[in-house]
Amino acid sequence: MERVTLDLLNTANRGAFVAALGAVMEHAPWVAEEAFGARPFSGVASLYQAMIDVVRNASDERQLVLLRGHPELAGQVAREGSLTADSTAEQGSVGLDRLTEEEFATFRRLNDSYRAKFGFPFIVCVRRHGKDSILRQFSRRLENNISAERETALSEIFHIAALRLDQRVDGPDRLNVHGRLSTHVLDTHAGRPAAGVAIEFCEIMANGTSLVLVRAKTDADGRTERPLISRRPIPIATYELRFAVGDYFTERAVRLAGPRFLDVVPVRFAVAEPEGHYHVPLLVTPWAYSTYRGS
Amino acid sequence: MERVTLDLLNTANRGAFVAALGAVMEHAPWVAEEAFGARPFSGVASLYQAMIDVVRNASDERQLVLLRGHPELAGQVAREGSLTADSTAEQGSVGLDRLTEEEFATFRRLNDSYRAKFGFPFIVCVRRHGKDSILRQFSRRLENNISAERETALSEIFHIAALRLDQRVDGPDRLNVHGRLSTHVLDTHAGRPAAGVAIEFCEIMANGTSLVLVRAKTDADGRTERPLISRRPIPIATYELRFAVGDYFTERAVRLAGPRFLDVVPVRFAVAEPEGHYHVPLLVTPWAYSTYRGS
Amino acid sequence: MERVTLDLLNTANRGAFVAALGAVMEHAPWVAEEAFGARPFSGVASLYQAMIDVVRNASDERQLVLLRGHPELAGQVAREGSLTADSTAEQGSVGLDRLTEEEFATFRRLNDSYRAKFGFPFIVCVRRHGKDSILRQFSRRLENNISAERETALSEIFHIAALRLDQRVDGPDRLNVHGRLSTHVLDTHAGRPAAGVAIEFCEIMANGTSLVLVRAKTDADGRTERPLISRRPIPIATYELRFAVGDYFTERAVRLAGPRFLDVVPVRFAVAEPEGHYHVPLLVTPWAYSTYRGS
Amino acid sequence: MERVTLDLLNTANRGAFVAALGAVMEHAPWVAEEAFGARPFSGVASLYQAMIDVVRNASDERQLVLLRGHPELAGQVAREGSLTADSTAEQGSVGLDRLTEEEFATFRRLNDSYRAKFGFPFIVCVRRHGKDSILRQFSRRLENNISAERETALSEIFHIAALRLDQRVDGPDRLNVHGRLSTHVLDTHAGRPAAGVAIEFCEIMANGTSLVLVRAKTDADGRTERPLISRRPIPIATYELRFAVGDYFTERAVRLAGPRFLDVVPVRFAVAEPEGHYHVPLLVTPWAYSTYRGS
Repeated sequence: MERVTLDLLNTANRGAFVAALGAVMEHAPWVAEEAFGARPFSGVASLYQAMIDVVRNASDERQLVLLRGHPELAGQVAREGSLTADSTAEQGSVGLDRLTEEEFATFRRLNDSYRAKFGFPFIVCVRRHGKDSILRQFSRRLENNISAERETALSEIFHIAALRLDQRVDGPDRLNVHGRLSTHVLDTHAGRPAAGVAIEFCEIMANGTSLVLVRAKTDADGRTERPLISRRPIPIATYELRFAVGDYFTERAVRLAGPRFLDVVPVRFAVAEPEGHYHVPLLVTPWAYSTYRGS
Repeated sequence: MERVTLDLLNTANRGAFVAALGAVMEHAPWVAEEAFGARPFSGVASLYQAMIDVVRNASDERQLVLLRGHPELAGQVAREGSLTADSTAEQGSVGLDRLTEEEFATFRRLNDSYRAKFGFPFIVCVRRHGKDSILRQFSRRLENNISAERETALSEIFHIAALRLDQRVDGPDRLNVHGRLSTHVLDTHAGRPAAGVAIEFCEIMANGTSLVLVRAKTDADGRTERPLISRRPIPIATYELRFAVGDYFTERAVRLAGPRFLDVVPVRFAVAEPEGHYHVPLLVTPWAYSTYRGS
Repeated sequence: MERVTLDLLNTANRGAFVAALGAVMEHAPWVAEEAFGARPFSGVASLYQAMIDVVRNASDERQLVLLRGHPELAGQVAREGSLTADSTAEQGSVGLDRLTEEEFATFRRLNDSYRAKFGFPFIVCVRRHGKDSILRQFSRRLENNISAERETALSEIFHIAALRLDQRVDGPDRLNVHGRLSTHVLDTHAGRPAAGVAIEFCEIMANGTSLVLVRAKTDADGRTERPLISRRPIPIATYELRFAVGDYFTERAVRLAGPRFLDVVPVRFAVAEPEGHYHVPLLVTPWAYSTYRGS
Repeated sequence: MERVTLDLLNTANRGAFVAALGAVMEHAPWVAEEAFGARPFSGVASLYQAMIDVVRNASDERQLVLLRGHPELAGQVAREGSLTADSTAEQGSVGLDRLTEEEFATFRRLNDSYRAKFGFPFIVCVRRHGKDSILRQFSRRLENNISAERETALSEIFHIAALRLDQRVDGPDRLNVHGRLSTHVLDTHAGRPAAGVAIEFCEIMANGTSLVLVRAKTDADGRTERPLISRRPIPIATYELRFAVGDYFTERAVRLAGPRFLDVVPVRFAVAEPEGHYHVPLLVTPWAYSTYRGS
């Protein structure tokens, strides 16, 4: 996706403005068109707010058209490859393009129930969720009454728009749409950062299976080269860090009768705030460890 | 199994003595017969030592007969139900009576290689090992030379005999054949023992599967009613404790946005000393925990 | 003090009964005399309750006489050596017999204000408090109105009576008048209890000075031979445990460049429940430690 | 002190060069004069090395003159105010200008013994030590033989020179002469950084007294605004951090019966590497805490 500067947007004509931002709201270039009048924008946040205001001030009918313009999650349209480019990337990010037949059937059943009850498709900002979390949201929101659910759907659209804007526009400020998840291993046996510890970072599914997202080794400072997740929301999900501390201590010539008391240490936790900072360190000796939510 | 007092053994005639202890060494009542002469015994430990001395002082040929008198592990004899009562219970304790065809084939292959190299069956005190540990021992001991391996096999026979004696004889002392594995949950959020925490205690297999050994809830003192393992050796194996701390804190009205940062906390560790005391506690808040090998 | 069994009290004549228990309430043998009628007692707790009931059912005037029968804390009577034996031991336990002139003057000033406001002396169960806590109670209770303070004074008398009964009577039950304070050192560098750690257990005064109460060394299990406080209430006070972990690790040949990062580790905490169980362990490596209120 | 750039030094004439660096070695401008010939220097480290080389290549006699050119620590010269500007600042940094008569006498006695044995004054880079550490060094080095002690004295001169160079010269690189000591408070009761915790950072003297070096409050990230020590070596000494966690939790409406189990938490540790990074965090609930040497 080509990025554009806020300065350029502030001086562009209406056509160029809408060409750049028309896809921020799904199948609703009119939102960008009407926001054009609020120029100039002092920052990306005020551009974003202007687009939200356009939607908020639109009539109920127009809002409904906006809601109905969204594709179903994991729906037939996706299967046929007729999603917008944004939606394709978003749904792919959480694996909705790689569902088993059984999962596909579950989504179809939920989609049908939802549309029957509310008259528009289920909308969720998929980049902020793991697959299990999307299914939990789906079931939970089916219990809503229609006005609460319209409000929820709009707020999801605004989450989606924020991420799309963030991908398109460079300005003096950034929208608060990114989280960060990091770790750190401290060797409290030797009193220094633990270097060279192999780490697996996994997502844990509701059915107990796990998916390795990142494999890394700690550096001289006990950290991974990059945060485990950054520059995007952290999907709401359950994760597990697996630290190969047994190998680490053996390589450092700490003599341990086999099998070692601690070998691979699993630390399991869930993320509830996609835009939050999660630092999950490990303080470890061959016989003890602790972990916590740091910052 | 009927238990007998050491006093009774010290005053029994030779026939009764051998009837009580003849099966302590597999298919080798002569060990009990010869130990009879060393009476009276001041404790179970000295009775045990007397039986060891009989074996140690026996000729190489007689020792070889003793070794050859042991059944194969998970062997054809077991399948046909012709094991001694002791061997049946021992092999069953580690699941050798419930092998898959593939595992059975592995054991057969190892048994064949072992017997071909050493001329006697592979002997191990199965109550001191999990299934994976037995297979590791098997492969490792196949690398031994014959004299080292005969010595190893005898020491395993002595482990087996100690446990069989412990099951049969009451005396003023106890053989050191039992380990203990326990846990404890301390709520460092509220500064008191965590009562009512559901715990699963599992054995973790090399292939990643897990077998729930105990399900328990902590009592008012944060402990389980009984130790997780006691009154027997702790099999050498990898274990996992799973503490349902998310439910615990929710029940105690600690408000946590869902999903909870900590839900089920897994603590994975291995046991290397079957007769050791392993205390593996959890100190926990909704946001942090630590664990260690205590005593 | 001679102890007597509850059985004996249940069958004694009135004279012997009052001889044994007359001093449980200060200068008020009539309480024992009237409780005599409630015999037999199934346990020490019911004997205790009977004595409380006598006081509760007494007239206001008689209660006032009871209150006035108590000596001043650290008062002139104590200086002249005319306290009852119980009061002498109790006031000595917290050091009220070893005050500086300045402290003595403070107590006199408080005693005078208190007596002027309430018409009876300040009564507190001194065994349940450190000196600083007594002074805090004194100032705080001077703010009470007279009816609240009479109630408070009675409840202190009942605390005193419980401890005096506990020192005199053996029965099938025990009054809940004792606390316990203990520690434990776990070496999480080596994965075992830390044996031979020198410990100082101190009371910390409000003026910053400290008083060593116990010096001890940990045994093979990482514990002290006896609890640091037991078989009595834990005085409400601030305490500090000082663990000589630097020497411990040096003796265990852990090489540490001097000066050692951790040498004497101070753990400072306060006790608020004299009858509670406080377990304050230390988990320690040469580079890290943790402590908590355990049980 | 006026700073000069390495570029300027590389192009200055000899007079200006020596004017800028003559005082780097105490009363020995000839070191700068001879180092002048090694220009140009690619960095401050190579300038430093050139000055060291000049000293190393000088004759024994000249080295002895250099050693003898240093003032006594806390000596008569200091009392009379005739130290060089550098020495005045250095000795003042550790309080050697504010000694009691007794301490002054101790230094005089040590200075006399030292000069009698070695023929030159005791030289130490005082910025790298607390007062107690200087006295320990003094006693220990008096045990050295003369050749080992000359070597030790030279290495101290080089430490002093490195710090003086670092204060004078800006170049593309920095000498590794600074340490950093920092802290961080994490509230593991609430799962977030502890903001607003009052901290005292003290030096603990051998006689048990303490000197408050810094008072600070943690910010929203649980850190102090600046590191507790930075941009200088950390004096080798024993320190104590005092965290007012009782007030912190009370302000956060955590209800605690008084007196609070944890009120001011002291964490005592020593620094052995003046150029090291010491991060000493506190993880704390109202009932538990842990600390460690981090990085």
